[in-house]
Amino acid sequence: MNQTFVYASIITIGDELLIGQVIDTNSAWMATELNKAGIWVRRRVAIGDAREEIIHALNEERNIADIILITGGLGPTADDITKPVLCEYFGGKLVVDEGALQNVQQIFARFNRPMLATNLKQAEVPDTCTVIDNKRGTAPGMWFEKEGKIYVSMPGVPHEMKGMMTDYVIPRLSGYYKMPFIVSRTLLTAGIGESFLSELIKNFEKDLPSSLKLAYLPNYGMVRLRLTGIGDKKEEIETTLQQQFGLLKTLVAEYLVTDQDDAMHIVVSKLLKQQHKTLCTAESCTGGYIAHLLTAEPGASQFFTGSVVCYSNKIKEEVLGVSRQTLETTGAVSEETVRQMVKGALALLKADYAVAVSGIMGPDGGSADKPVGLVWVAIGNIEKTITQQFNFRFDRGRNIELTSNNALNLLRKFIIS
Amino acid sequence: MNQTFVYASIITIGDELLIGQVIDTNSAWMATELNKAGIWVRRRVAIGDAREEIIHALNEERNIADIILITGGLGPTADDITKPVLCEYFGGKLVVDEGALQNVQQIFARFNRPMLATNLKQAEVPDTCTVIDNKRGTAPGMWFEKEGKIYVSMPGVPHEMKGMMTDYVIPRLSGYYKMPFIVSRTLLTAGIGESFLSELIKNFEKDLPSSLKLAYLPNYGMVRLRLTGIGDKKEEIETTLQQQFGLLKTLVAEYLVTDQDDAMHIVVSKLLKQQHKTLCTAESCTGGYIAHLLTAEPGASQFFTGSVVCYSNKIKEEVLGVSRQTLETTGAVSEETVRQMVKGALALLKADYAVAVSGIMGPDGGSADKPVGLVWVAIGNIEKTITQQFNFRFDRGRNIELTSNNALNLLRKFIIS
Repeated sequence: MNQTFVYASIITIGDELLIGQVIDTNSAWMATELNKAGIWVRRRVAIGDAREEIIHALNEERNIADIILITGGLGPTADDITKPVLCEYFGGKLVVDEGALQNVQQIFARFNRPMLATNLKQAEVPDTCTVIDNKRGTAPGMWFEKEGKIYVSMPGVPHEMKGMMTDYVIPRLSGYYKMPFIVSRTLLTAGIGESFLSELIKNFEKDLPSSLKLAYLPNYGMVRLRLTGIGDKKEEIETTLQQQFGLLKTLVAEYLVTDQDDAMHIVVSKLLKQQHKTLCTAESCTGGYIAHLLTAEPGASQFFTGSVVCYSNKIKEEVLGVSRQTLETTGAVSEETVRQMVKGALALLKADYAVAVSGIMGPDGGSADKPVGLVWVAIGNIEKTITQQFNFRFDRGRNIELTSNNALNLLRKFIIS
Repeated sequence: MNQTFVYASIITIGDELLIGQVIDTNSAWMATELNKAGIWVRRRVAIGDAREEIIHALNEERNIADIILITGGLGPTADDITKPVLCEYFGGKLVVDEGALQNVQQIFARFNRPMLATNLKQAEVPDTCTVIDNKRGTAPGMWFEKEGKIYVSMPGVPHEMKGMMTDYVIPRLSGYYKMPFIVSRTLLTAGIGESFLSELIKNFEKDLPSSLKLAYLPNYGMVRLRLTGIGDKKEEIETTLQQQFGLLKTLVAEYLVTDQDDAMHIVVSKLLKQQHKTLCTAESCTGGYIAHLLTAEPGASQFFTGSVVCYSNKIKEEVLGVSRQTLETTGAVSEETVRQMVKGALALLKADYAVAVSGIMGPDGGSADKPVGLVWVAIGNIEKTITQQFNFRFDRGRNIELTSNNALNLLRKFIIS
């Protein structure tokens, strides 16, 4: 292992992580930010709110990492024990921090709420730590140093943790070490499976310089390829990465969606903004999910006019103008229905392009004729409408994701064709 | 620590987990299923695709757990090294498994795709394991036993892992141990913060029998309380849990949304189905997210007719009939606009109830008058429309979640009032 690396471990504390009630989204975000700063995440460990587990994890992770980032267990309730355990681990005693106390008082004053003794206890910290201000909540963060290792404890609430990382932790860590230079580039492919992609770039992968690493990230029928370069010489590593990334792009050109680390809906959003075109959707089986993807990012009003989610045939007919005869003869999941949905959406929602989807997402509703996973997608503008049939074979959630991403990919191809 | 427990550790393998490109949803699902079977998850560890890391993690986890569940690193590409490392760890050699080979061949035949040598390698397994069939993909699972510990390796693809867990791993594990009995009940509250809730039930929590454990799970302005009972005597633990859960319900009655482990959109869906009523939505700032939540579960067509996502004022005016004067004088984010959106939605989408939302989700678009986080919600039926203003203070994603959940809670109260 190259010892010029700075390694971090992430410890997440909370019984909710071990009983499956919470999905940990913090660790992925933290890893991304640490990577950007040149810090390599070596392990992530999730443990319960138990003294021995916390101490055991601290002892283990300090053996393999330079920096130990800890989230969770700082709330005001009795099951939150991270703070007293850290106080025991690093020595010292709990004292009220004046800045943290003022912060707690201000937050309660702002919301005009009475304070409880448990809220005041939030302002207590071990006197062996440096306090990290929490601008978004009541629990302060804590920075400890011991035997050459750095330990940072932060709340598990995502936006509080993110604020501390961005404002304090990453900048301070960046000043501490001589970091190696980590840089990566990602591209997105569609229409080719992971193993065929691997075959296609087999020689490229074999000949890859040792300073670069290639990762395959398959997701919903699309595969992202990420090339990461690591080294001490910034210019050298950037040049190598650019050369190899260019080569990789050429090799997968037929399947290339974007050479940026963007999801499909971002690619489509950027394309529409660039071309000053607008989009609307007519969604049956995706139930508004495509509209949600497109509006989840700021600036959607520049290109997105709206959507009709037509979950009943009546709405397809009365709002989007799909003919009753079509619905009765070819059915709601048919090429003709999605064609008419595109027409109706373009007229009603006044956009340059329309996406229409109708399908059977499961687990119920399928038949021999029209099995679960059957989807019709239509894409159109004022001049032309194209259609495509898909057959997915997964659970409802994945089928909705796949339908949305494939519909957006078809739209992308329609726009650039 | 009570030694009648059976402990599991979950090891997830994959560089993508350490560079932040993938959010691990597998572990939460696995933990839930293991808990139901009476197995306690003690730790979850995420590591990279590196031989030493895998061996180190196996050595560590076998010290603290009886069962080590491993996911990931079984794909066909060069970065997937879990199988050879397990072969080294447990001894033996890689051999072709006939069942796994047939499975791979059948999958490729079904999709009418040519096979590559790397796909055939998927059928190789260490001869020291029991093969677990993969009905949903090409990589077989592997079951190892060594020195009284059980190790199970499964693919990281969620639906493949879930299939193996349900069909094979959980049933076989359940036959292995005399499990303690783990049972839990969860309720959902709204309208009270975590610390105030904690104060309200302080004495209850203090007097809780030692066989029960209470967890607070705050999420989007709502707090779930989960009471878990653990013990060897099934009837005793069930009786204690029911008694205490009943007491807890009484204490939080004023804020109780449901005494089931259901998210807000499920509570509302069930209520509408029970009452044989239908719902539609008119969504500006949530961009279809409420419609998506309601249609993410099967059976939504029983109560959901559809939605108009009106991202532009033109759509509000032309499709939902919001008056131009209102949009020009009070603006799109106003009480009057959402009132008119309810009226328009009820007329167009033919439902018993309508939910309308309009707000500023950020990060841009705010003003001194109407800051980011300002949201107006209206709920109505043919007879009556109620409105409520909210002020959220988070990032765009959280604001969309909060708006959706609070709108659904307002609808719930409107329906039962």
